[in-house]
Amino acid sequence: MFDSNCLFCKIVAGDIPAMKVLEDDVCLAFMDIGPLADGHVLLIPKFHAETLDKLSIDHAGDMLKHLPALVHAVQAATSCQGVNVLQNNGVAAHQEVMHVHFHVIPRNEGDAFGFNWPSGSYESGRMEELAEAIRKGL
Amino acid sequence: MFDSNCLFCKIVAGDIPAMKVLEDDVCLAFMDIGPLADGHVLLIPKFHAETLDKLSIDHAGDMLKHLPALVHAVQAATSCQGVNVLQNNGVAAHQEVMHVHFHVIPRNEGDAFGFNWPSGSYESGRMEELAEAIRKGL
Repeated sequence: MFDSNCLFCKIVAGDIPAMKVLEDDVCLAFMDIGPLADGHVLLIPKFHAETLDKLSIDHAGDMLKHLPALVHAVQAATSCQGVNVLQNNGVAAHQEVMHVHFHVIPRNEGDAFGFNWPSGSYESGRMEELAEAIRKGL
Repeated sequence: MFDSNCLFCKIVAGDIPAMKVLEDDVCLAFMDIGPLADGHVLLIPKFHAETLDKLSIDHAGDMLKHLPALVHAVQAATSCQGVNVLQNNGVAAHQEVMHVHFHVIPRNEGDAFGFNWPSGSYESGRMEELAEAIRKGL
């Protein structure tokens, strides 16, 4: 599926140039031109899907199997101390281009990218209730 | 492979309890007991690997193919506005348990979890140089 209004579909189609690092039948990885750090890479499906839940199980597996190699290669190329893999679904999750993309982001102590981590806890029974609801939705 | 000092290996082995939502031969998904939001789930390989680059291509595909269903189910169960999928490699990337894990994190406008997004740009030639180095590392 191709969405003629989608930036990443245009990259897949070759209508907009991108600095590719990996490509096969189902996916494409290329350099983010607004990097959070040198070596920031994006991995996208060639199929247009706004959010990850819209990808089939097979398509997701065929695309995401490349993440270990991408993490390795980005780390080797940049000598970074760590790597985040991040995928945002929806504006509330900071999605900016409405075509599924996984960020592979080099990290170093004290760099500018980072997140709050306000971990909480559950009241009695709430976790079990949510787990049951999630199992039903699978 | 089993690491007797690893919290998540102990969960896989059943030595430490966890509220499971999905399990098959290669992976396990369960509720994070220190959630960033109600419904925060972790997806882990049953095989012990500290960081994502240590997983084989097949193992990664077999595990990560479940992410679309998990994103869907977490969103359905919590009615959240968005979902982040996040995986941290190394302390510099905020990894706390040294066994590969993908966070599936419900998001809503104004919630406490969030990240800085200091996107930058490349000087002439630098992106091409990094892309070439990344391709060599794949």
